[in-house]
Amino acid sequence: MTTRAEIVIIGNEILSGKVADEHSAFLCREFRALGVDVRRVEIIPDEVDAIADAVRAAWERADLIVTTGGVGPTPDDVTIAGIARGLGRPVIRHPDLESLVRVLYGKQPLKAAERLAEVPEGATLISAPGLRVPVVVVEKLYIFPGVPETLRRKFHAIKSRFREAPFHLKRIYLAVGEEPIASALDDAVAKFPALLLGSYPVFDRQDYRVLLTLESKDLRYLTEAHAYLLARLPQGAVVRLDDGSPQPRSAWGEE
Amino acid sequence: MTTRAEIVIIGNEILSGKVADEHSAFLCREFRALGVDVRRVEIIPDEVDAIADAVRAAWERADLIVTTGGVGPTPDDVTIAGIARGLGRPVIRHPDLESLVRVLYGKQPLKAAERLAEVPEGATLISAPGLRVPVVVVEKLYIFPGVPETLRRKFHAIKSRFREAPFHLKRIYLAVGEEPIASALDDAVAKFPALLLGSYPVFDRQDYRVLLTLESKDLRYLTEAHAYLLARLPQGAVVRLDDGSPQPRSAWGEE
Repeated sequence: MTTRAEIVIIGNEILSGKVADEHSAFLCREFRALGVDVRRVEIIPDEVDAIADAVRAAWERADLIVTTGGVGPTPDDVTIAGIARGLGRPVIRHPDLESLVRVLYGKQPLKAAERLAEVPEGATLISAPGLRVPVVVVEKLYIFPGVPETLRRKFHAIKSRFREAPFHLKRIYLAVGEEPIASALDDAVAKFPALLLGSYPVFDRQDYRVLLTLESKDLRYLTEAHAYLLARLPQGAVVRLDDGSPQPRSAWGEE
Repeated sequence: MTTRAEIVIIGNEILSGKVADEHSAFLCREFRALGVDVRRVEIIPDEVDAIADAVRAAWERADLIVTTGGVGPTPDDVTIAGIARGLGRPVIRHPDLESLVRVLYGKQPLKAAERLAEVPEGATLISAPGLRVPVVVVEKLYIFPGVPETLRRKFHAIKSRFREAPFHLKRIYLAVGEEPIASALDDAVAKFPALLLGSYPVFDRQDYRVLLTLESKDLRYLTEAHAYLLARLPQGAVVRLDDGSPQPRSAWGEE
């Protein structure tokens, strides 16, 4: 079984175009490398109801949920309240977090510092080497901050717990456009329904016109599907083949 | 009334970490400049059911919906089928699009080319100068391609139809962290509930520690809220004030 993950990115600053979302690219890449299947990313505002709705819906569908953003001490930080409402739990102060916050923010006004110790009831804390503040988890839901550096540091510190069987990838680079290969792809998908197939035209390269990606966690199935498809592509269409998963370019698309 | 928009980004290549999403940043920035309020971004897989569910939910909530991706001729391009299912309409071939496709793809296999002429029943086409292929629209839902250059070209060609009253923005840069200002922000939000307030700490700058953003479409309301908040911030906390909306940095966050 592949873990189905969802990512909920909470932040008015992203929706209002002030900050570009970096979290989805980071988390999708990391989760893929860990063998986790990200099924959905949502970017929603810093509003209790929007967060509650998104968390409730994700909870129904996903095996693993990550939220980012909205966990500071100011009034736009309502992630904890939203998650608690979505899961039908009260907000409480976690005693361990409260002790930590008193050490870290001892000199600040009590009320703001206390907010940083709030969690949905039943939350647990995950500590790891290098983390000043632990990650707050509610069963399958992991609450991460919105600051990119802090998110990354925290994610890397605990990511080993998400690791499972990897995806295998084969790539086929083609000298022709999508139209002349569409029926071969249709055949391959019909014969190998579990194959994860992507077809990405590019317009600004001389060396190929379409990149096909074939993926599966089952290497044997992938190898068979790959051979089946190669045999059906138009003669002379294939420019290059490779495996592995370095970062492709971002100019892919389907038109 | 501010238009409430939702963006549905369709693409396995993003969820599997192969390509970083560029669409949400582009569309959020453009819509904000047009005065449109983006309420949600979703990134979902190239699957008919996932698309149908996302479109159905967005249709209930939003005044304006944009989809990107999944509109080519290969089997991973199922956006049209997904939107049609989500809206409970059949897929038909649009006669004008069919004629155009025959001109543009005349030499390609008929079946693949025909797919490019498919639309949900009731769809209309928006042509504009510089567009080789028109934008397909189903009432309030605009279907854009996933190739970034093509998406941008098409969006710019028709964006004037989305323009409405602009958002006004004021920024306050602070020499102190979030904790000592949290109660002043609480007061301002209580007094000006319609104010859009953001509080973003930064960790890697010498010149300020927190950036506050105050926004409203009502300039007078914004000015009053701004003055009210300034009067309540700790003495010496304010480093700098400005208006307008150039691109801030991406290292904002709440922790």
